[in-house]
Amino acid sequence: MNKAAIILVAPQMGENIGAAARVMKNFGLNDLRIINPRDGWPNEKAQSMSVGAIDIVNNAKIYNNLKDALLDIEFLYATTAVSRDMNKATITSKEIANDYPYGLKVAIMFGRESSGLTNNEISISNKIININTSDFSSLNIAQAIGILCYELYNNINNDYAQDSDIATKNDFLLFCEHLEIELERKNFFKIVEKKPKMMQNIINIFNRIDKLSKSELQTLRGIIKSLSR
Amino acid sequence: MNKAAIILVAPQMGENIGAAARVMKNFGLNDLRIINPRDGWPNEKAQSMSVGAIDIVNNAKIYNNLKDALLDIEFLYATTAVSRDMNKATITSKEIANDYPYGLKVAIMFGRESSGLTNNEISISNKIININTSDFSSLNIAQAIGILCYELYNNINNDYAQDSDIATKNDFLLFCEHLEIELERKNFFKIVEKKPKMMQNIINIFNRIDKLSKSELQTLRGIIKSLSR
Repeated sequence: MNKAAIILVAPQMGENIGAAARVMKNFGLNDLRIINPRDGWPNEKAQSMSVGAIDIVNNAKIYNNLKDALLDIEFLYATTAVSRDMNKATITSKEIANDYPYGLKVAIMFGRESSGLTNNEISISNKIININTSDFSSLNIAQAIGILCYELYNNINNDYAQDSDIATKNDFLLFCEHLEIELERKNFFKIVEKKPKMMQNIINIFNRIDKLSKSELQTLRGIIKSLSR
Repeated sequence: MNKAAIILVAPQMGENIGAAARVMKNFGLNDLRIINPRDGWPNEKAQSMSVGAIDIVNNAKIYNNLKDALLDIEFLYATTAVSRDMNKATITSKEIANDYPYGLKVAIMFGRESSGLTNNEISISNKIININTSDFSSLNIAQAIGILCYELYNNINNDYAQDSDIATKNDFLLFCEHLEIELERKNFFKIVEKKPKMMQNIINIFNRIDKLSKSELQTLRGIIKSLSR
C-alpha cells in the first residue's frame, strides 16, 4: 500500500503525534515521518494517545532534517493556518480531490504547534493547502491532519505508481543547492542580507514547474552548468 | 453562520469535551450541549483543552436527560461508527451539505467514547450520519465532531481573489529567446540538429511554472544574465 505520507516538522506534543497516527489509520494512511520531535523518540504519550494505531507510531520514520524525509517524495503539500506572502499556488482542503497529483508519491507537511512551518520549509513545497476556518483559526494539528486524511480517504484513490519518472523533492533540493552555489560564485546575491529571501523566491519559481521529470531536472542542471562555465 | 448545536451524550473524558469546543469554534459553531458528563461539571480538563474556545466550554448547557436538551431542536442527526440494524435514513458526512435542512434548528448528537449512542437515543434522531473510515473505525469523538463541523462550515462558499501580476506570454517568449542566445554562446547545443527539439523541451519546462509573475520572470532573466557572465 503506497499512499500519501504525513510529515510532522518538529512537533512539540507527543499527544498530538499519537492523535495524528490514530486518525491517519482511521482514514487508511500509514506513512508517518517526523522531523526532530521536541521531546525525543520514542515518546510514551504518542504511544498511549494512538490507541489502536500504535503500529503507525512504532513504524514512524524519524529524521533530523527535512531533506532526508523527502528522498522519495514527488509532490509536497505544505499546510499553513495563516496565509503567507509567497507566490505559491494555494488550494483549500475542499479542492484537494481535484488537485491531487494522481500517480505521484505525495506528502503533506505540518509545522510546529506553536508557529507552524517556516517560510523556508514552505518554499520547498509544491503547493499550500489551507483549511478554511472561522476567525478563530487555531486548529489543533491532529484535527487538521484528520480533516486532510478524511478528504483524501473520501475522494481519491491515492495509491501511486512505482514507475513514475517525476523528480523527487530530494533531487530538487540538490538542484537548488547547485544553482545557489553557482549564483554565489557569480556574485548574483549582491546584498548578503537579501540572499535568503531571494533564494526562497527562486526556489519558489522552479518549484511551480508542474510534474518536473527526472530528465527535465537533468536538463535544468545542464543549463546551470553550461551557463556557469 | 451555521447555528447547529452539538450535543454530547454522556461524554467520558473532559479532554474530548475541550477539544470538541475548540474545533466547534474553529468552524464557527458555539452551541454546545452536554448530557450527564461522566466526571461532573465544570471540568478542568475540558477547560484546559479548549485553549481559545474556553467561552464555548463555559457557556455549554448541561442537562441530565436528552429530552430537555432537545427543547428547541427541529432536526436531529445522530452519529454512529457502526451501522445499526434500524430502518432510518443514513447519510455520509460528505452528503450533509446537500442534506442539511436549511432554516430549521439543527443538532448533531454524539455518543459515549466507549459505546456511542444507544439504539433508543438514535431512534429519536431524524437521520443517521456516518463518517466513512478504514477498517480501523475507532474515530476519536473530537475528530468526528471536527469533521462534521468542517463540512457544515464549508457550505459557505469562499471566493479567492486572484493575482493580476502574471507575466504575459510575450514576456515569456522574450525570456526564452534570451536563454537560447546565452546557451548558444556557451555551446550548450552540441549537436546542431538536436537544438530545436532541445529548446522545445526547455521551453516546456519553464512554461509549466504555474502563474509565473512578471517579477519572477525578471528574476529568471537575472539568473541567466548572472550565470552567463
